[in-house]
Amino acid sequence: MIKIGFLGPKGTFSHEAMEKYIGAREHAAYDYGTIPDMLYAIQRGDIDEAVVPIENSLEGAVNVTLDMLASEVDLKIRAELVLAIKQNLLVKKGTGFGDIKHILSHPQPIGQCRKYISANFPEVQVRYVYSTAGAAEEVAKGEKGLAAIGSVKAAEAYGLDILAYGIQDGENNFTRFVVIANEDNERTGYDKTSIVFSTEDRPGSLYRILDIFNLWDINMTRIESRPAKNQLGRYIFFVDINGHRDDEDIRDALTMVKRKTSFFKFLGSYPRSKAEY
Amino acid sequence: MIKIGFLGPKGTFSHEAMEKYIGAREHAAYDYGTIPDMLYAIQRGDIDEAVVPIENSLEGAVNVTLDMLASEVDLKIRAELVLAIKQNLLVKKGTGFGDIKHILSHPQPIGQCRKYISANFPEVQVRYVYSTAGAAEEVAKGEKGLAAIGSVKAAEAYGLDILAYGIQDGENNFTRFVVIANEDNERTGYDKTSIVFSTEDRPGSLYRILDIFNLWDINMTRIESRPAKNQLGRYIFFVDINGHRDDEDIRDALTMVKRKTSFFKFLGSYPRSKAEY
Repeated sequence: MIKIGFLGPKGTFSHEAMEKYIGAREHAAYDYGTIPDMLYAIQRGDIDEAVVPIENSLEGAVNVTLDMLASEVDLKIRAELVLAIKQNLLVKKGTGFGDIKHILSHPQPIGQCRKYISANFPEVQVRYVYSTAGAAEEVAKGEKGLAAIGSVKAAEAYGLDILAYGIQDGENNFTRFVVIANEDNERTGYDKTSIVFSTEDRPGSLYRILDIFNLWDINMTRIESRPAKNQLGRYIFFVDINGHRDDEDIRDALTMVKRKTSFFKFLGSYPRSKAEY
Repeated sequence: MIKIGFLGPKGTFSHEAMEKYIGAREHAAYDYGTIPDMLYAIQRGDIDEAVVPIENSLEGAVNVTLDMLASEVDLKIRAELVLAIKQNLLVKKGTGFGDIKHILSHPQPIGQCRKYISANFPEVQVRYVYSTAGAAEEVAKGEKGLAAIGSVKAAEAYGLDILAYGIQDGENNFTRFVVIANEDNERTGYDKTSIVFSTEDRPGSLYRILDIFNLWDINMTRIESRPAKNQLGRYIFFVDINGHRDDEDIRDALTMVKRKTSFFKFLGSYPRSKAEY
C-alpha cells in the first residue's frame, strides 16, 4: 500500500489533487503542515510519495517547492497533474446572503475573487487569515455573519454549506502539482524532463545552454529563475523540456548541459499531463 | 519639490530605501499601503515617483511589482538601488532577553532569522503577523514578554529598544528597489535597460529572442518569467540588459526583439546601481 502525503489540513486543493492522482489505488494519506516537512518525510522514509503544488496560472511559481527540490532534498518528480481551481463561498448552515458581515480567507483566494466580492458584497469586511482551511474552521465555529472562501472539499471537511459556486474572477485558474518520490518514472513516449542548473558567471552563459536545446531540437516548455541565494544578481534556472532521459537526444543534450553549467541537478522524467489547458 | 511614495507604514525597508535614494533633495514623502495603490497614485499625478522593491537575494522576485509594470500601469523605471536587509530584535524599554515569551513578525523576516531564533530562543513562541511594522506596533502597545523582528527604522518609528542587531541568518540578504515615474532616465554610460515581452507560442521562441542579444553582444543580467495569466504554461519574460536605449546597439536589438515578440513593453533605461554585492 502506497503512503502518500499532501499539504493539509483536509479540504485543501492539495488534498483534492492527491485524491485525483491516487484514484482507486489502495493508499494511506498523511497531511503535512508545510511543503518542507512533507518532503523531508519522504527522505526519512515515512511516506513514499507526496503531491506538491509547483505553479499556478495566475500567481506563478511556488517558490518553496522549487527551492526545496534544488537544494534541500535529493528527490525526483515522478508525475504531474493539473487541477482547475474553483473558489466557493462557504457558510454555516442557516446563513443567507444578507447575513454576511465578514468574509475570511487567505489573501490569495481573496485576490482571486476580488471582482465577485466588490460586486456582491461591497459593504462586507474582508479579513485575511493564514489558510483557507483555517478560514473554514473559523466560520464553522463562529457566528452566523461569517463566510469563508474555499474549496468544495473544505466545505465537506468542516460541515459548511456552499452559498455560491465558482466565484473566482477568471476562468483560467489552474494549479500544476507534481508528485515527488525517491525515483522518477518510466518512459511512456509522451514525457517531460525537469532539470535545475546555474550557469557560469559570464555574459551569455544562459544563452549557451538554451543553444544546446536548440541544436538537439528539444522543446523547452518552461524556464523559471530563482535566486542563487549567495549573491544578489546570481540565479539558478529550472527548465522543463519535452522528452525522457532514456531518449537518445535528451541524454546527449543533458550530458552537454552538465558540462557547461557550474551546478546541475536532474529532477526527473515523467509522463506529461494530458489536461487540456 | 519632488513628491515621492514608499511602501508604508514608517519604518519599513522601503522607507529606508526611499530616504537613501532621495538623500538631501527637498521632497515630500507619502506612504502607501500597497504597491498597486502607490503606482496608480503616480498615474493619477498625486506623486511624482515611488520606490518599490523588485527582487530580494533570498526570496526572489517581488511578483506584484512585475505584474503591475507589465500590465496594469504605463510607467517607467528611472533608477535602481540596492539595500542590505538587516533584521533586529525589537522590544519595549525594560524588556530583557529572559523576559521574552513571544516573537512576532511577518513570515519572511522570521524565515530569515530562523537559526538565530532556534539557537537563542528555543522555548519562545513565534507568532506570524501581517507586517513587520504591525509587529513593532503590537510590541509597543503590548506587555513586556513580546519582541518583534524588524528594521532599525521600525524601532525608531515605534519607540522600541533594539536588543540585538543584525540577527538574520545569512550575510547575503539584499533587496533591489526601483524608482518608478512617468519617464525613465538619461544616458550616463553605465546604464541598464528593462523590457518585458511574451514570445510566440511555438518551440524555441525564447531562444530566438536571446539569440538577438547574442548577435549584438548585449549582456543580459536577469531574466524572470511570470505567468501570462491567460493560460497555464504561457509566460511573459522580464529581461534586464546592460546599456541605454540611446546606445545604437541597444536600439537596433530592441527594434528586432519587438518584431519577434507577440507582446513587447519598454520599461526604461536608467543608471546601474554601483553597489558592490
